[in-house]
Amino acid sequence: MGAVKTKRMPRAVREQQMLDAAVRIFGQRGYMAASMDDIAELAGVSKPLVYLYLNSKDDLFLAVIRREAAALTEAVRTAVRLDQPADRRLWDGLLAFFTHTARHPDAWSVLHLHARTHGEPFAAEVTAMRAEIVTFVTRLIAVAAREAHRNPDLADHEVAGLAEALVGAAESLAAWANTGDGVGARQAAATLMNFAWAGLGSLMAGRAWSPPAP
Amino acid sequence: MGAVKTKRMPRAVREQQMLDAAVRIFGQRGYMAASMDDIAELAGVSKPLVYLYLNSKDDLFLAVIRREAAALTEAVRTAVRLDQPADRRLWDGLLAFFTHTARHPDAWSVLHLHARTHGEPFAAEVTAMRAEIVTFVTRLIAVAAREAHRNPDLADHEVAGLAEALVGAAESLAAWANTGDGVGARQAAATLMNFAWAGLGSLMAGRAWSPPAP
Repeated sequence: MGAVKTKRMPRAVREQQMLDAAVRIFGQRGYMAASMDDIAELAGVSKPLVYLYLNSKDDLFLAVIRREAAALTEAVRTAVRLDQPADRRLWDGLLAFFTHTARHPDAWSVLHLHARTHGEPFAAEVTAMRAEIVTFVTRLIAVAAREAHRNPDLADHEVAGLAEALVGAAESLAAWANTGDGVGARQAAATLMNFAWAGLGSLMAGRAWSPPAP
Repeated sequence: MGAVKTKRMPRAVREQQMLDAAVRIFGQRGYMAASMDDIAELAGVSKPLVYLYLNSKDDLFLAVIRREAAALTEAVRTAVRLDQPADRRLWDGLLAFFTHTARHPDAWSVLHLHARTHGEPFAAEVTAMRAEIVTFVTRLIAVAAREAHRNPDLADHEVAGLAEALVGAAESLAAWANTGDGVGARQAAATLMNFAWAGLGSLMAGRAWSPPAP
């Protein structure tokens, strides 16, 4: 027997391989259609080993959601440096988001789609991740508005709404970019940055749009 | 027996009552947890009658998706009048969207959430509805850009991306407004209009944001 075959893989490494396989199967087929047989096969291990390490299909799904949610928020957070100007921070965050979702399309499908509709505890994990990102973006916008010094009247709920809008737009564009129309991460980020920054920039300069009377 | 009790209800009316009940049960519990017993009870009819009219849980779910998708697109389309200026058209469309989703939160949950992750033919219906709305918004933006006469270089894929961003932002804000933070339809529409119009307005005036070199 060669050295490669006899060498035992550390548990942590094998577990990550199982999670890698699970992301792909869950992401491409959804929770219901995903089978533990296929996940074990793709990971190159036996099914009992998957159960031994991850316990159940539910626990495996939850572990996938947690790992991928942490990876996505981490990617966005580390890309944004607070010593940069406001528009550069927003650009860096968006580019990191679109780059990550383009590189990990199956993970994005799990988070954006499949994790949301199979009840708890799955939906709560994604809700928490999304809330964390919205809070992060809300703070970015609030700081940018303060720096602009031009519109101190941008109310808290208005900033929260803008952050919700921005995150929703990013989610939509990530799915659009991933359908393979040839729109890369950079293009998606530039489109949203233009949409968002020109708009936020106008707002911060006090150039708001006024609705007609009801 | 009184006149009310003996009067037979036309099939079309009864069917709509069943669909009303189904929207509520599917929207609040999701596809898997929804039971035909509960739907029949809420509609005030026997379960066999539901099967007689709607055939199966799958067919009932599909009928709900089709009815609610048609109602939502109809609400947005009829609100937008082409003799209005571009910003007014966008405002009217957004206000109609948020008013409709606020009045029909269960229908919105079905379309935005539950219909997407139970395979075909359900997902295809929502994808088609969304594509129709994105196309409609894309045309609104393209016409507005043409009217502005200032930025003929707003490329087709850029307009398509802006429409995707706008629709995603609207979806996100509809869910946010429906969580009951006291943000009404008008406020949600005003927030997005400010975000979108100030941004699109700047773009059309040729004030684009430029990304830093890679």
